[in-house]
Amino acid sequence: MSEQSIHPVPGLRLGAVAAGIKKPDRRDLVVMELAPGSRVAAVFTRNRFCAAPVHVAREHLARGEPRYLLVNTGYANAGTGEQGLRDARACCAALARAGGCAPEQVLPFSTGVIGEALPVERISAGLPAVLEALAGDGWREAASGILTTDTVPKLASREFRVDGVRCILTGMAKGSGMIRPDMATMLAYVATDAALPQALLDRALREAVHLSFNRVTVDGDTSTNDACVLAATGQGELRIEEEGDAYRAFRAALTELCVELARAIARDGEGATKLVNVHVDEALNELEAARVAFTVAESPLVKTALFASDPNWGRILAAVGRAGIDDLDVSRVRIYLDELCIARDGGRAPDYQESAAAARIAGSEVTIRVCLGRGVAKGTVWTCDFSYDYVRINAEYRT
Amino acid sequence: MSEQSIHPVPGLRLGAVAAGIKKPDRRDLVVMELAPGSRVAAVFTRNRFCAAPVHVAREHLARGEPRYLLVNTGYANAGTGEQGLRDARACCAALARAGGCAPEQVLPFSTGVIGEALPVERISAGLPAVLEALAGDGWREAASGILTTDTVPKLASREFRVDGVRCILTGMAKGSGMIRPDMATMLAYVATDAALPQALLDRALREAVHLSFNRVTVDGDTSTNDACVLAATGQGELRIEEEGDAYRAFRAALTELCVELARAIARDGEGATKLVNVHVDEALNELEAARVAFTVAESPLVKTALFASDPNWGRILAAVGRAGIDDLDVSRVRIYLDELCIARDGGRAPDYQESAAAARIAGSEVTIRVCLGRGVAKGTVWTCDFSYDYVRINAEYRT
Repeated sequence: MSEQSIHPVPGLRLGAVAAGIKKPDRRDLVVMELAPGSRVAAVFTRNRFCAAPVHVAREHLARGEPRYLLVNTGYANAGTGEQGLRDARACCAALARAGGCAPEQVLPFSTGVIGEALPVERISAGLPAVLEALAGDGWREAASGILTTDTVPKLASREFRVDGVRCILTGMAKGSGMIRPDMATMLAYVATDAALPQALLDRALREAVHLSFNRVTVDGDTSTNDACVLAATGQGELRIEEEGDAYRAFRAALTELCVELARAIARDGEGATKLVNVHVDEALNELEAARVAFTVAESPLVKTALFASDPNWGRILAAVGRAGIDDLDVSRVRIYLDELCIARDGGRAPDYQESAAAARIAGSEVTIRVCLGRGVAKGTVWTCDFSYDYVRINAEYRT
Repeated sequence: MSEQSIHPVPGLRLGAVAAGIKKPDRRDLVVMELAPGSRVAAVFTRNRFCAAPVHVAREHLARGEPRYLLVNTGYANAGTGEQGLRDARACCAALARAGGCAPEQVLPFSTGVIGEALPVERISAGLPAVLEALAGDGWREAASGILTTDTVPKLASREFRVDGVRCILTGMAKGSGMIRPDMATMLAYVATDAALPQALLDRALREAVHLSFNRVTVDGDTSTNDACVLAATGQGELRIEEEGDAYRAFRAALTELCVELARAIARDGEGATKLVNVHVDEALNELEAARVAFTVAESPLVKTALFASDPNWGRILAAVGRAGIDDLDVSRVRIYLDELCIARDGGRAPDYQESAAAARIAGSEVTIRVCLGRGVAKGTVWTCDFSYDYVRINAEYRT
């Protein structure tokens, strides 16, 4: 991923500095600056205990044209009550003063420990340096500046053409634990130089997130701070006015980019040694496909077997059986590792060979496919295996 | 528990032997013999991939008066298709021949590895010795004979009086991983010397299981083989004819006994170092209380924090927030460790002290209480923490 070329997005500059928010000498404060006229769409966590910055970002997004996105790590500013709201607003006000805009034009985002007060002073003190650092090619620094327990920055970028018109999409994400996004992942920022009306921008983001970030699970724990932002600076050549082929081409590219970032989150899940693709086919409807895929993807028994590189199809079958489909005909279900059928007719496939199955889960990426034999709907969920390191990280780290 | 006196149940004899089903020198074959005239109630897993013995036990229960319960460990006979049904029936027929009854009077139960064929020959060969071993005080041997990854046998016993009339209830359970029972736990057998009509016996079991085994979760993975049996031999003094005070007293004692066994399962969950009681109060209804309690009890982040003896209330709060109550007013929610309030008004309690909270989760039993501020319904779920050993056990053991 780091070898991939990351296209700057005209109209967007990024900066990241080490502001000493929680640990010294670690990039922990990131600012994204949007040119005037940019439009912003965002989706947020549906956790009822959503963090103070989520409340404030929603409020500010509704009121005006955002000019700055402000991200800190170290402290999530969640579970902080009224004080948390005041602190998030104070950070917005400080950036507005330094950057010359209204406080409502700043959207705040925080990630880190839940329940500790935000160190507003340290964040404010770091702002001049981060504004100084703003640059159109600041994506790599920003992508490393938003990480917490992640081990690698997550970036993706596309340059593509719609009817011959050039367009850029570049994005970054973070997230490693407390990952089962519900509307959006922990934090993801995607920018384009295209111009879209607000309603289409909102819709493109919702549709892309539905098939990407909302299909990732590391531990089933939906975070208090999930947010995903799509900014369109309108400084490129592509102008999309209405739903049509151009919109669909843009949405397809956006979805593909979000899937790339979502898979990067699963691959870098806390303690993960494998990326796991769970495809469910032949479901009655999309909801049912997603439910079965999530049940398999979140089963601790399936995940520990994958960690052990043990093709334990019985645990996959048991997870499918408890996924809540009351009228499931188990004799029609087939389970595959890649293209290898491992279970059918209610049990192990007659020609099953352990060695062939083991070879398909030995590597760093595993694909499980479950065919339900009920219909034509399908869905995919991305996850990772469950290792000693997941326990170590979460027994030692305070979310 | 092992010091507790275990009352034999007149009319019930138990035997257990090492039949070499999967490993040598380990008790793995258990028979319970019921006196003629006994009545039996049972509830089974709702996993759609339920095991062959579950199918056969249901069928036999519907057809006649059971005389024998036959349990093997080592192989679950789940995911074994038609062959599995034939094997389960063959075991019943072998015991019927040896014990002198009809095959339909044998209820089979299996637990162990999913998807491998049942070694019918070894089970049949072990039957004479297990019949030879049958004894009214065979509970301890039987309770150890049904274990798989469990570390301790789980037994409970009561002698109580209803209007001065003596009654005995004795039971055993097994279960350590793949535990989130849905109608019943992995395997549990309870017997009484009371006499009850079949309809009341069925109902007493359903009601007791609802508040006991169905409230335990180790890893959220509902097994393919769950079964819970209540046998009433009718050889004691207590005769319950209809719903009334005597029935309610009996049901209360049965529920208490099942809760004791359910808590023993949670305490002995795979890799567990702590028993965790999750109480949810002030819910709108019982379903909502159970949903919040299960969400907290199954959160890997909450469970790893408990393993670390870290009073990480932020993770509990985040789990409550994602439990699916869309109109939850987070400002009314309070979270307690024992009687110590750790979170309220959307954040940490103002007088929260880390040391006081840490003291309450340092021991081998932890009580989390969540008050939702919405109503008067409540519910309890029992679980355990999530340790390195959970991963070790499940990366090394093939379910």
